[in-house]
Amino acid sequence: MDLKEEKIESKEVFKGKILNLFVDTVKLPNGKTSTREVVRHCKASCILAKLPNGKFLLEKQFRYPYNEEIYEFPAGKCDLDEDPMKTAYRELEEETGYQANNIVYLGKMYPSCAYTDEIIYLYYADSLVKKEQHLDEGEALNVYEYSLEEIMNLIKLDKLNDAKSLCALQFYFAKIYKNN
Amino acid sequence: MDLKEEKIESKEVFKGKILNLFVDTVKLPNGKTSTREVVRHCKASCILAKLPNGKFLLEKQFRYPYNEEIYEFPAGKCDLDEDPMKTAYRELEEETGYQANNIVYLGKMYPSCAYTDEIIYLYYADSLVKKEQHLDEGEALNVYEYSLEEIMNLIKLDKLNDAKSLCALQFYFAKIYKNN
Repeated sequence: MDLKEEKIESKEVFKGKILNLFVDTVKLPNGKTSTREVVRHCKASCILAKLPNGKFLLEKQFRYPYNEEIYEFPAGKCDLDEDPMKTAYRELEEETGYQANNIVYLGKMYPSCAYTDEIIYLYYADSLVKKEQHLDEGEALNVYEYSLEEIMNLIKLDKLNDAKSLCALQFYFAKIYKNN
Repeated sequence: MDLKEEKIESKEVFKGKILNLFVDTVKLPNGKTSTREVVRHCKASCILAKLPNGKFLLEKQFRYPYNEEIYEFPAGKCDLDEDPMKTAYRELEEETGYQANNIVYLGKMYPSCAYTDEIIYLYYADSLVKKEQHLDEGEALNVYEYSLEEIMNLIKLDKLNDAKSLCALQFYFAKIYKNN
């Protein structure tokens, strides 16, 4: 089945601080037209970071859309034209105070493919050295150390729900983790 | 550290077919005010469905925000007030033609917690029986059967990037999968 949709027209309906919103008119594979509501968002990076003690850095942040504090691995938006791996080094140190001497690319994920173009690049980091945490103005988060077993328990209890963190773990298991 | 942000004001800036966009003013934990751009979106369900031959149902769909055909497990938006498990049964049959006699809840995921309130409920299905596919008007997708090994290879090759699908797999490995 031919699947491709072609852009006929694009209209920006909102220009914001962290996202822009477009309503595009498209031609469907069946020849009819439809509209697509698309959030345009910058790239971001997320880091699964392993400490020398074997535990992983996990954060808790209040996330306004859910009115809830949630568990997440360290992450942040790429600055304009910033390489996502550089973002990974930078955000890990800013948010947790740990500098990584080794970061490996795991894969990329598409958060919600129907309406946003955001791509989050996922990394694994180790050889961490403690430096200084330096949060952005207004940024508030708590940092924890969890073993892999504790993280798997959070998943079993449906208490780790952040997509980028779950995806980073899935790539880690597919590409890096060795069971002893 | 106190993390909670309090809503001071909420302004709807766009009302669409599949999403609404709000710009809210919030009081931060440090007492200052800031704004939050929030996409409000309906709930959705995603299904990791295992066939009697041991393979899993995988789809390829053109996703306009990425201008790309991507791999995904069957999924769809919940109708108004529809129970997400009912959505899972309905969407699986509509998109793939398979009726499940057993669906198990895996967990829920938050696609991009900084700016959308969408929740995608993840399910595992088996005991599948072939019925009729009946796609929505304008919906175009191809359905494939992949072994778990083939799916893990897609991940290793960075070719399975859809967040809900990767998260469903991660919950499946944490809660259901037994390594013989």
